[in-house]
Amino acid sequence: MGKQKALMDKLVRTFQIRHMLLRQALAECLGTLILMMFSCGEVAQLVLSGGSHGMFLTINFAFGFAATLGILVSGQVSGGHLNPTVTFPLCILGREPWRKFPVFFLFQTLGAFLGSGIIFGMYSGEGNLEMFYDDKCPNNNNNNSFSSCHNATAGIFATYPSKHLTLVNGFFDQMIGMAALIMCILAIVDPYNNPIHRGLEAFTVGFVVLVIGLSMGFNPARDLGPRIFTALAGWGSEVFTAYSYWFFVPIFAPFIGVVVGMTVYQLMVGYHVEGEARENREEEEKEEQEEMLKMSSLYQK
Amino acid sequence: MGKQKALMDKLVRTFQIRHMLLRQALAECLGTLILMMFSCGEVAQLVLSGGSHGMFLTINFAFGFAATLGILVSGQVSGGHLNPTVTFPLCILGREPWRKFPVFFLFQTLGAFLGSGIIFGMYSGEGNLEMFYDDKCPNNNNNNSFSSCHNATAGIFATYPSKHLTLVNGFFDQMIGMAALIMCILAIVDPYNNPIHRGLEAFTVGFVVLVIGLSMGFNPARDLGPRIFTALAGWGSEVFTAYSYWFFVPIFAPFIGVVVGMTVYQLMVGYHVEGEARENREEEEKEEQEEMLKMSSLYQK
Amino acid sequence: MGKQKALMDKLVRTFQIRHMLLRQALAECLGTLILMMFSCGEVAQLVLSGGSHGMFLTINFAFGFAATLGILVSGQVSGGHLNPTVTFPLCILGREPWRKFPVFFLFQTLGAFLGSGIIFGMYSGEGNLEMFYDDKCPNNNNNNSFSSCHNATAGIFATYPSKHLTLVNGFFDQMIGMAALIMCILAIVDPYNNPIHRGLEAFTVGFVVLVIGLSMGFNPARDLGPRIFTALAGWGSEVFTAYSYWFFVPIFAPFIGVVVGMTVYQLMVGYHVEGEARENREEEEKEEQEEMLKMSSLYQK
Amino acid sequence: MGKQKALMDKLVRTFQIRHMLLRQALAECLGTLILMMFSCGEVAQLVLSGGSHGMFLTINFAFGFAATLGILVSGQVSGGHLNPTVTFPLCILGREPWRKFPVFFLFQTLGAFLGSGIIFGMYSGEGNLEMFYDDKCPNNNNNNSFSSCHNATAGIFATYPSKHLTLVNGFFDQMIGMAALIMCILAIVDPYNNPIHRGLEAFTVGFVVLVIGLSMGFNPARDLGPRIFTALAGWGSEVFTAYSYWFFVPIFAPFIGVVVGMTVYQLMVGYHVEGEARENREEEEKEEQEEMLKMSSLYQK
Repeated sequence: MGKQKALMDKLVRTFQIRHMLLRQALAECLGTLILMMFSCGEVAQLVLSGGSHGMFLTINFAFGFAATLGILVSGQVSGGHLNPTVTFPLCILGREPWRKFPVFFLFQTLGAFLGSGIIFGMYSGEGNLEMFYDDKCPNNNNNNSFSSCHNATAGIFATYPSKHLTLVNGFFDQMIGMAALIMCILAIVDPYNNPIHRGLEAFTVGFVVLVIGLSMGFNPARDLGPRIFTALAGWGSEVFTAYSYWFFVPIFAPFIGVVVGMTVYQLMVGYHVEGEARENREEEEKEEQEEMLKMSSLYQK
Repeated sequence: MGKQKALMDKLVRTFQIRHMLLRQALAECLGTLILMMFSCGEVAQLVLSGGSHGMFLTINFAFGFAATLGILVSGQVSGGHLNPTVTFPLCILGREPWRKFPVFFLFQTLGAFLGSGIIFGMYSGEGNLEMFYDDKCPNNNNNNSFSSCHNATAGIFATYPSKHLTLVNGFFDQMIGMAALIMCILAIVDPYNNPIHRGLEAFTVGFVVLVIGLSMGFNPARDLGPRIFTALAGWGSEVFTAYSYWFFVPIFAPFIGVVVGMTVYQLMVGYHVEGEARENREEEEKEEQEEMLKMSSLYQK
Repeated sequence: MGKQKALMDKLVRTFQIRHMLLRQALAECLGTLILMMFSCGEVAQLVLSGGSHGMFLTINFAFGFAATLGILVSGQVSGGHLNPTVTFPLCILGREPWRKFPVFFLFQTLGAFLGSGIIFGMYSGEGNLEMFYDDKCPNNNNNNSFSSCHNATAGIFATYPSKHLTLVNGFFDQMIGMAALIMCILAIVDPYNNPIHRGLEAFTVGFVVLVIGLSMGFNPARDLGPRIFTALAGWGSEVFTAYSYWFFVPIFAPFIGVVVGMTVYQLMVGYHVEGEARENREEEEKEEQEEMLKMSSLYQK
Repeated sequence: MGKQKALMDKLVRTFQIRHMLLRQALAECLGTLILMMFSCGEVAQLVLSGGSHGMFLTINFAFGFAATLGILVSGQVSGGHLNPTVTFPLCILGREPWRKFPVFFLFQTLGAFLGSGIIFGMYSGEGNLEMFYDDKCPNNNNNNSFSSCHNATAGIFATYPSKHLTLVNGFFDQMIGMAALIMCILAIVDPYNNPIHRGLEAFTVGFVVLVIGLSMGFNPARDLGPRIFTALAGWGSEVFTAYSYWFFVPIFAPFIGVVVGMTVYQLMVGYHVEGEARENREEEEKEEQEEMLKMSSLYQK
């Protein structure tokens, strides 16, 4: 086994990346790819099987578990954000440096792009390729053509509004949902209010995602990457322009929701536990200093 | 990052609340708000989508997970009761001071009130506002009008009895259910009989809620707050008077159930483990004292 | 709070039971009562609602979670067996004294009896009492009357064979199922092969019960107690005589299955880890003795 | 109890196997048997009950939990691979010796063979034996006879391709699926990137299997053993020749997928954490050596 071990060691030396931020970005990319593959694969299965394989509950479970798996794979290296709206409040609160935000956003979007490509490849085989395209309506339709023709299959990859939902309504929905999500996530990762065993954080975040259920639209990277993919894969620029430029909503609404949720959590729980922890620390330091002073005065005698 | 850190520190100093009970009350309020938003949101989705989004099992899961999330957010600060019938037996058993009970009850009710308001706001957008109201029947109906017209949508927020269930029956049901719930919760948080890792208590209570399934009616705060909201939001005073003042049942029955369940648990398990723990402690103290006596007698020789 | 504390202390002193076996028996009784209430309540809800509240999966979940809750309540005191076929192999393997077996069996059966009584009481209210009885067929039917008339409602409490299942077949089924169950349980509680954190044992056993799914028939106490209750509550002695004395099967088949499962597990995994652990212990003792010998010879020099 | 204890000790001494690899192989065999019994039993129940007992979600859960139970039973002894495609990358990475691979493969296949035999025995009783065979079509059919006649019941035990899926497509599907599965498993068991509490690994792998959902085809041993059983039990050699020798796909595609997934994981996460850990170790050793040098130079003075 000596030879094999030597080869393995050599591979480690060759491929090891020493730049910390790049390494974290790669982990975020792989984590988001896994998140995308499992969650999107489940939706694809549901839509393409016409409802027989999976159902509403299965999809919620798949989203929750996909988040758990993505965090498991990347967590130790990059923290397993997998979502720019998770990186964002941590930067605001000063727990992560700001330069991480654009890099993570880029690589998370890249991971989601690649993940949707793999799912597209898996399902676009002989028997299924038509299923992705066959409901393309003829172009003589009116400007509602996208919703009635492409929605079901394009909706496997990115978010589109339900019927009867205006842009303002959808914006408000996404904002509230994201505010609720971020409150729970901040409570779970709050260093001063951490009720969860560290090894269980991945599962807990997965549960949060499972409960919220509509998480797909709450992850700008998870939405933008696959949308770009679908634009390139044949659905065209309509994926951006459809529903009066709806694609802006799942990118910007979550960020506003994050700021709202973060503010509420910090005002009602976060600042108090943080302040208390700091006071305790300061008191301890004071006592230590006094102890030191006493000790030194004893020695000086 | 120095400037940002200074700003963050200043925010902590400004908004930190030092009064312990107020801080705990705020945490209970936020926890109940989250409990309300997630559990009620799921019911709303089920009722308003006409059954296609979610089902009986989904609702049970949503209630269980909503309780878990609420406890996660508030647990470290206030214990995460989120329910006056959990605070109540802890006060009786002398583990919490009695003055917490009215304060927690008030803030839990407030949290549930605000949570139902947010859900109402989210779903009462353009396309959905009518869904909340459109089954309002004309007033020329008989006195059964509430049950046949409002029940489905008002039932999103507060509990109403199923058909064929008399007041006495409903009271008995709620009492038994709450007795079973409190037995499990007391076992989980019993300091002398604690089989659960501390970080898992939130999940365990969530599981208990999930199993019991009908938990909505077992939380007086969770029932009263939204009922007041619905009264203000357009359903009117009928939410109180309907079904021969049914609203008394989900407020008082759980408290009686709690007393029954607590008594059974204490008589069959609690008192014995507590007594044993005290005896062990007393013996240890005795041994220590004897040790001390021996030591001192040795020194005195 | 001084007065309340004194009262609480007095209550502990008055009601504390010091006899260890009785205390454990009471815990088993309460645990089985809870197991019975939750699992049976779910089946009752399914049968009585005609399938709309709950489904096959819900019942499996309810059984699994009911086992978890029962173990949580009683585990610290009595080990949370809740099932004579769990006590049995532990007695055979010499991990529990034999006198526990009859006492636990009696109190587990008593707990299941009481639990089914509570469920009967809850559902036999005005609107539902008829549901338990109304499918009683007239006596002019042939000797298949029980199966076609009572089965659905009597089956809420105790096990009856599915159609087309002979006595021998049913016996074999129950035996294999119990053998599989006990293999997993022995692996979970094996002191030499314990891969599960102690605080998670309750959940793990619950998962096992969930997976096996048909656990109701695999617990002789869970089957006998409710069967006696149904005999007294109006279904009559037919619950024993129906299907050529089927009631023997869920009482004896599991015990034979337990012996089979235990033997397979011990031969394939148990004896080896146990033997290894003993050898390690003996070696350590030997080394210690040698160390002692060396030390003493050094001192004697 | 002295006599019983002596007997138990004698049994341990008699049946203990001291050869480590054989002991591990037996544990793998029992673990795969349990994995097979639970997962296959659920599919059998679904197929034979015509869909009323269980559904798509139940099967995914059953596969996940079956994997968890199999790992629980065998994990402490053999690591609980239960799948040659899990043993394979661990051998490549030099974490397990290569001689384990053929032995584990053999015993895993044997366990799956025995497990499918037990399920066959349980369901082939009087009323059910026909269900396994009665859709055997007369031989005057064309060469599609296997798919239309045997598929449903033979599919309980081993994998057959869905309609419209060519050999190449199926191969690609299984490869991608296995690559995703192995990325998650490698992250969970990676000694340098282990975010999961050891006692939770069994559950985590179970969750991964649950999410991927189609795991049956991703375990060559789980596929080959039952296929051999079905060939012997009456379905004949068609189980191998059907669908242009499809049986090759679930045996070879997963191994190729494993190599792809392992490479991606190692390049994007594994090598960096491993390299970092080694560098830290080397630095520590260096510091220790320097410390030693200083110490010795101090003493030499």
